[in-house]
Amino acid sequence: MTAVNSGRRVEGPSKDRPAQQLIDAGFAWEIADAPLLHHGLNMADIAHVLDLRHRHIIPERAAAALLGVLLDTHRTKPEDFPYDAAYGEPYNSRERHFVATIGDDAGWLHAGRPRREAARVALRILLRGLTAQLAVAASEFAATSCRTAARYREVYMPDQTYLQQAQPSTFGHYLLGFVPPAIRDCDRLIDALAQVNTSPGGAGCVNGSRLLDDRRVIADLLGFDDVITHTRDAMWQTDTFVDLLTTSVSLLSNQSKLAEDLEIWSSQEFDYVDLAGPYTRASVLMPQKRNPYALSIVRGGGGVLIGRLTGFLAVVKSPSARSDNLIFAYGEIPKAVEFATRITALMEGVVDTLSVNEDRMWQRLEEGYTQATDLAEFVMLRCGLDYRAAYLIVGEVVREASRRGVRGVDISSEDLDRAATSVVGRTLDLDAEEIKTVLDPRAIVATRSALGGAAPEAVESMTEEYLAKAVDLGYRANHALEKYAAAEARLLAEAEQVAAGRND
Amino acid sequence: MTAVNSGRRVEGPSKDRPAQQLIDAGFAWEIADAPLLHHGLNMADIAHVLDLRHRHIIPERAAAALLGVLLDTHRTKPEDFPYDAAYGEPYNSRERHFVATIGDDAGWLHAGRPRREAARVALRILLRGLTAQLAVAASEFAATSCRTAARYREVYMPDQTYLQQAQPSTFGHYLLGFVPPAIRDCDRLIDALAQVNTSPGGAGCVNGSRLLDDRRVIADLLGFDDVITHTRDAMWQTDTFVDLLTTSVSLLSNQSKLAEDLEIWSSQEFDYVDLAGPYTRASVLMPQKRNPYALSIVRGGGGVLIGRLTGFLAVVKSPSARSDNLIFAYGEIPKAVEFATRITALMEGVVDTLSVNEDRMWQRLEEGYTQATDLAEFVMLRCGLDYRAAYLIVGEVVREASRRGVRGVDISSEDLDRAATSVVGRTLDLDAEEIKTVLDPRAIVATRSALGGAAPEAVESMTEEYLAKAVDLGYRANHALEKYAAAEARLLAEAEQVAAGRND
Amino acid sequence: MTAVNSGRRVEGPSKDRPAQQLIDAGFAWEIADAPLLHHGLNMADIAHVLDLRHRHIIPERAAAALLGVLLDTHRTKPEDFPYDAAYGEPYNSRERHFVATIGDDAGWLHAGRPRREAARVALRILLRGLTAQLAVAASEFAATSCRTAARYREVYMPDQTYLQQAQPSTFGHYLLGFVPPAIRDCDRLIDALAQVNTSPGGAGCVNGSRLLDDRRVIADLLGFDDVITHTRDAMWQTDTFVDLLTTSVSLLSNQSKLAEDLEIWSSQEFDYVDLAGPYTRASVLMPQKRNPYALSIVRGGGGVLIGRLTGFLAVVKSPSARSDNLIFAYGEIPKAVEFATRITALMEGVVDTLSVNEDRMWQRLEEGYTQATDLAEFVMLRCGLDYRAAYLIVGEVVREASRRGVRGVDISSEDLDRAATSVVGRTLDLDAEEIKTVLDPRAIVATRSALGGAAPEAVESMTEEYLAKAVDLGYRANHALEKYAAAEARLLAEAEQVAAGRND
Amino acid sequence: MTAVNSGRRVEGPSKDRPAQQLIDAGFAWEIADAPLLHHGLNMADIAHVLDLRHRHIIPERAAAALLGVLLDTHRTKPEDFPYDAAYGEPYNSRERHFVATIGDDAGWLHAGRPRREAARVALRILLRGLTAQLAVAASEFAATSCRTAARYREVYMPDQTYLQQAQPSTFGHYLLGFVPPAIRDCDRLIDALAQVNTSPGGAGCVNGSRLLDDRRVIADLLGFDDVITHTRDAMWQTDTFVDLLTTSVSLLSNQSKLAEDLEIWSSQEFDYVDLAGPYTRASVLMPQKRNPYALSIVRGGGGVLIGRLTGFLAVVKSPSARSDNLIFAYGEIPKAVEFATRITALMEGVVDTLSVNEDRMWQRLEEGYTQATDLAEFVMLRCGLDYRAAYLIVGEVVREASRRGVRGVDISSEDLDRAATSVVGRTLDLDAEEIKTVLDPRAIVATRSALGGAAPEAVESMTEEYLAKAVDLGYRANHALEKYAAAEARLLAEAEQVAAGRND
Repeated sequence: MTAVNSGRRVEGPSKDRPAQQLIDAGFAWEIADAPLLHHGLNMADIAHVLDLRHRHIIPERAAAALLGVLLDTHRTKPEDFPYDAAYGEPYNSRERHFVATIGDDAGWLHAGRPRREAARVALRILLRGLTAQLAVAASEFAATSCRTAARYREVYMPDQTYLQQAQPSTFGHYLLGFVPPAIRDCDRLIDALAQVNTSPGGAGCVNGSRLLDDRRVIADLLGFDDVITHTRDAMWQTDTFVDLLTTSVSLLSNQSKLAEDLEIWSSQEFDYVDLAGPYTRASVLMPQKRNPYALSIVRGGGGVLIGRLTGFLAVVKSPSARSDNLIFAYGEIPKAVEFATRITALMEGVVDTLSVNEDRMWQRLEEGYTQATDLAEFVMLRCGLDYRAAYLIVGEVVREASRRGVRGVDISSEDLDRAATSVVGRTLDLDAEEIKTVLDPRAIVATRSALGGAAPEAVESMTEEYLAKAVDLGYRANHALEKYAAAEARLLAEAEQVAAGRND
Repeated sequence: MTAVNSGRRVEGPSKDRPAQQLIDAGFAWEIADAPLLHHGLNMADIAHVLDLRHRHIIPERAAAALLGVLLDTHRTKPEDFPYDAAYGEPYNSRERHFVATIGDDAGWLHAGRPRREAARVALRILLRGLTAQLAVAASEFAATSCRTAARYREVYMPDQTYLQQAQPSTFGHYLLGFVPPAIRDCDRLIDALAQVNTSPGGAGCVNGSRLLDDRRVIADLLGFDDVITHTRDAMWQTDTFVDLLTTSVSLLSNQSKLAEDLEIWSSQEFDYVDLAGPYTRASVLMPQKRNPYALSIVRGGGGVLIGRLTGFLAVVKSPSARSDNLIFAYGEIPKAVEFATRITALMEGVVDTLSVNEDRMWQRLEEGYTQATDLAEFVMLRCGLDYRAAYLIVGEVVREASRRGVRGVDISSEDLDRAATSVVGRTLDLDAEEIKTVLDPRAIVATRSALGGAAPEAVESMTEEYLAKAVDLGYRANHALEKYAAAEARLLAEAEQVAAGRND
Repeated sequence: MTAVNSGRRVEGPSKDRPAQQLIDAGFAWEIADAPLLHHGLNMADIAHVLDLRHRHIIPERAAAALLGVLLDTHRTKPEDFPYDAAYGEPYNSRERHFVATIGDDAGWLHAGRPRREAARVALRILLRGLTAQLAVAASEFAATSCRTAARYREVYMPDQTYLQQAQPSTFGHYLLGFVPPAIRDCDRLIDALAQVNTSPGGAGCVNGSRLLDDRRVIADLLGFDDVITHTRDAMWQTDTFVDLLTTSVSLLSNQSKLAEDLEIWSSQEFDYVDLAGPYTRASVLMPQKRNPYALSIVRGGGGVLIGRLTGFLAVVKSPSARSDNLIFAYGEIPKAVEFATRITALMEGVVDTLSVNEDRMWQRLEEGYTQATDLAEFVMLRCGLDYRAAYLIVGEVVREASRRGVRGVDISSEDLDRAATSVVGRTLDLDAEEIKTVLDPRAIVATRSALGGAAPEAVESMTEEYLAKAVDLGYRANHALEKYAAAEARLLAEAEQVAAGRND
Repeated sequence: MTAVNSGRRVEGPSKDRPAQQLIDAGFAWEIADAPLLHHGLNMADIAHVLDLRHRHIIPERAAAALLGVLLDTHRTKPEDFPYDAAYGEPYNSRERHFVATIGDDAGWLHAGRPRREAARVALRILLRGLTAQLAVAASEFAATSCRTAARYREVYMPDQTYLQQAQPSTFGHYLLGFVPPAIRDCDRLIDALAQVNTSPGGAGCVNGSRLLDDRRVIADLLGFDDVITHTRDAMWQTDTFVDLLTTSVSLLSNQSKLAEDLEIWSSQEFDYVDLAGPYTRASVLMPQKRNPYALSIVRGGGGVLIGRLTGFLAVVKSPSARSDNLIFAYGEIPKAVEFATRITALMEGVVDTLSVNEDRMWQRLEEGYTQATDLAEFVMLRCGLDYRAAYLIVGEVVREASRRGVRGVDISSEDLDRAATSVVGRTLDLDAEEIKTVLDPRAIVATRSALGGAAPEAVESMTEEYLAKAVDLGYRANHALEKYAAAEARLLAEAEQVAAGRND
């Protein structure tokens, strides 16, 4: 029950047990993220003990004991470690276990470092790996899409805007269009990685610590590329996570568009593409169904991540130095990045194994009127008419042809003359053979030979350029993963040595 | 590898095993929600078998066998049931287990019902309970806040706008301001409950089923209040979940404001309130700290839920009848509603146990100038000046007083005259005693006796009205919970009887 | 330049001119909303003066003068009123103009009321009208959809899930599925209207006012249904706006799904539907194009509104009693609601004028295998096989038929026997005539006669029920609009009388 | 009224007038953005005509006529140009006006280019300027914050976490913490600028154009840094805008935190800082109020932009090549970026002119217990106790001191011994003088001399580094602005020459 308290307020930690509602709403949420942070907390704690030892702050015996229990913890799977919300968030459970195991020596762990710092370090160790893995997946999606596009650069189809047939193109050109955004986002991830893999270590409470005079030690021990200079920035920075999360969202946004297109194109009515069996799901009720389940997951996953980004932005809308800014991020951000990786790998699989119905696409090209723009341009160039006039003539031609069931490829010089007479009051007298060529979808695509166009050679040259970029980005991401692994191995080796008393 | 497929597309379920990426990104996500849906799926399956049996579609022997394994499943904790993403989402794992246990008889379960329907029913069974529990928590938050407000209706404090001292008020009036939004949202939850607890059962694939001619049977078996009429609406409705999620967000938004206020007021500088020990958390580094951790959780939780709502809205931005619309909702929405309940219970605990520093609040009232409006109104009424003129005079008085360190309660007739002379060119000659009264914060609050005001009797009358409403809403939510439990008990009893062959 | 100020802080209004950056970022934003709030501010001010006059606070002469200038302002279009960010937000410009016009008498306007209250009242006057108009549009969308659905209740088509053909249905049943969500959201709008149309008037700064002892007077003058009791709730309530905004979003979410479906169905490849010319837009480049522009607007509008809701939720994530909570809402919320109305009216037009290609839909039904479920159910019922077995047989039939190019309607008894032999090791020996009937899409739809199903008579009965509801909701919304108009007319009449001195 | 249309669908532009609802919901929205796009559309059109002319596609006379009317349009303010939703979106109004002015020659404008390309170019021309301006504002905010921080690097204050006093620090160190995020976001803006300022020109409908074989011409004419290679990417890219919008949001998120802090610190209760008069706003009702209105605008603006980002992400969740993806972006994104610039300039003004109450901050430091960590570390180092033990002792000291009203600076050796006896069963016997030093807030801050810490020299060195970065970023952004201006001037000069027929 609340009480009017007119007296002086008591400072210092409360001796009360936490309320059950606090355990249920707060600690339980944080403990649920313990499996994610376990590895990074172990690394952070080990590095901190080594740092304290280098400075001769912690007694050698205590250092060995602490490293011993920390290495044991590192060898323990998180689900086997006694994380328990009844005692607070993960750090509290760890502290409790360490004291229970090695007694007061465990108390040295907290020298010069708030729990927050341990968690911040752990988060970045987790995220650098997940970010690099997402970059790998993104580069592979881009590379696979390049290879697939190359295979289809002469498979003709009507490209669409508003899902209305627009102009003749190829499936290869279409698919390749999803590559540059993927490459840009992958590039952004590599940039983000450089920000993520910086060390918040040694920031003290918020303004530094009297105990630690060189913040590079801990950064080096943990394989961080750099130290985050300002200590408040080190502790409370959120822009790096916003940037990382947004890039994950953007990456899925691109894939979601492709997924939606493929969903439409794999309908019976379109029948342009067909997902490979392993990416579909049967209905339990309807025996004829082969549902493109993978596409639903990609699209839905993209939507879910929009919410994760918005939620994070809403959470960090608060004054500075508030714990909620990152308490909720410990789980939300890694899970989001990791889910983006799974989705990206799935979409790569879809693209890699897709069937494309070349005949149907060609049939649609022949039936439709996607040559209309080229026809109007031909009229303009040949007849000296401004484009608007040519457009009006061809528009009339199409209206008439569609009414009469005449296919685009069968439009004749007479059709043009009839329309021209009605629109501009004269005939055009164009050559029938030339018209035939202008109306040929393959010939039209061949004219799209400028930079970025649909002509097969333009697609080929883009494919090569994009593929080289994708491969390079993948290489850089994989290289980062190896570097992190090496740093962690070195850290563990040093800790083993100290724990074993074999300290030279 | 993708392939140009010019031939005819094969329809019907694929015989391929699912791709590993599909398992990782899709099935694993869905399987993670199995513990949430387990109970509801059991209820849905049991009711469906009973319905098929009433219609003599399923042989009696198969019905008994199916109900037997379903009741066993109901007695099995979800973590002990062989849910496994390798075989698809939860329904697939169940089917697999049922076939393994009772053979072909398990195949009757799918008659006339898609998996989707089972999941939709399970989701609503889960959500009706969670929604009612959130309504209970909201009503308790409102009721506790009423009781606490009543206790403080004569604890005076400067109310604030822009966090600048505004007018004299009481902590009771302040706190009571959080009650009407909570009551409205609780009311909305009760309305939402009526929508949530309706039956999608018997909708067939999407347009009905030839097997089931009365959709009320399954609704009654499961304790639903009504049947969702249109079968597409039954299967794909999302507005009900948007509404429920938004109300959860709104409920936390209100609490988040209170939490932010209390965080500020519990700073050493304000020292207006102090959280009870069980709602605080110690620092591991700083020995003097007693952090209001509960408030961070409330505020952060509110932010997280904004993201959950946005994410759901983004997910359902798709064409109609797409699986992703609800696949992701199965876990996201129940978890969001349940988290809102935990947060609300936490905030209730905070309010219930808060200390209030009456002396400090009063001291701030005396030092400040929150009486300025009343003073200006007094000048207006007594001196026949328009309000703008009176305002300018008092503004000048305050500027001078603050410069000279004169407290608000000590403003004198001479101060007024000096300012009036400078502003309107004449003195006011007001009575010193009357000014004293006008400047008394307690006397000012007493004038706020109109509906909704801060005067103690106005607060008392509001408190009574709100408390009655809160108690009534809590009663209705609890009543719904009992009703659902009773329906499920009846269903299980009927299933037990059939399974045991004791069918009368 | 910032300065260390060790002295005492000066309270009271600053005499400095506002900084240009403050004008650019703050006042300019607020002034941009002046045209929206103009009418409501006039109403609020007029009612406040009449209230002050009833209480004999304002001298009669000043009341007449003030009402005179306010009535003039009411007759002035907002773009002709001297709103100017250089002097602050709209209220400041008004004050400035009133003083310039009638001198000190204008100063009485501020007695007992903060500017915030005027704006809150204005917002609600604006929103009640916009909300009712949105409800009218929603009811008309629902009613038109009902009428259109009725027209197509025997136009057969393959219904889809995952955009894969699922079961035979009708376009009427499909379209009618968008009606119940629209009706529920319309109903929520009517509920929201009751909350929106309540009076924040007389709340004083935040805890009441000594000047106004009956808050119902102003509520009655302005045609509000009720008074918002708690004064802090009256001033700072946000849940009502969250609810209203969410319902607007939800309403568009439903329409967006329909728009996406129609976009797909109006592709050349589907050719199921065709938008009427007035809802399309020509390309400037491609002469064959007739783009379904209306559908892009509906879908994009739905996305924009998701952001408006999220933005508002993010803005109100703050401590209590902060001005930003509603400063940004003054424009954002009315514009969002109003845009939702335009979108809804557009979608109604699309539905009302759509062409439906019955032949194509029927052709697709015949070619496909949407009868598979009914066939499996028939096998189950006739052959005593469990559904899973029947499903496997029919799945094999479909795979074979699609491979061989056999249409669904042409599946034969022999096809079934061949598949059954391979799946269950025996033939089924079903009657060829019966199979014919089971495979007839029209006959299948006729079996969907239970509540909510696709059978024409089930659709007819739903249509009637929904249409009646839609009409009733529209009636209620229109009635509210009339009521508001009448109240405002009475208010103006009373003000005219006082201004003219003809006060009886 | 909808109609069953079993016949053949007519392709080609509709001859119907647009529906009024289409004008109201679609065209009116687009026309409202015309003032924003006007300049860029003029540039795009002029460059396109010059490009057509270089290729000898357009007759010289027509080119001169078209450039003439386009230059006129460039000299016309958008509000004076006949933009009118009744005729479609802005491009349609322009076309209409050009035809009305120069007749059929206007028809050449559309050769080889969809309206979409004109708008895409216009958007990027608009956004490059706005992005660079935001970068300028961000760099100025960072630079001003550096300079202000330098001024306060020896103004001591209790830094806070959870808004609870944490450790002694300085206002300079605190304020400087907002600089590195601002610099990173500014850096991201410069990166984004490189993406924004790329040319979508010459992409044709979606796959290139037969008319334009060198896409660099138009890029060079318009001052773009590069060509967007893939034509679909050129037309439909969204990741660049997501990135830009997110960085704007992130930039405001940082400022919003500072604004919230300052709001709290400028309360009467804290009285740490005071906004300069020109950034405050008076109340109309309360004569004592001086509200920190600027801070509300900053915080609310940050919230509004979260919604703009979310809305854009929701809008682009669609299939590929859909018009809604960018139709809504034309206005939403520039307005968001421009608003971010205004907010950032406002926040810079606030920081630049803030008053800081050094005495009050120091008084709070003396009264509180922010030295507790340093005291515990001292105990640990001197007494060979592990940190946990030292922490428990000091925690007890603080509890006792606060109960007894002893200030932190007055804690004595005896206090420590009493607590140590109770916690570890022995006294500590520490030197009184040393304790005095340990408890001195200034001395504590002096120990924070490692990288990024609060010690004045550490702050000084950071300040220099950050300031140099900020100045450099500002220089780069300003340089970009000059480059764009020069390119546009060259373009206009060439157009003038051709229009005048003085083509050499």
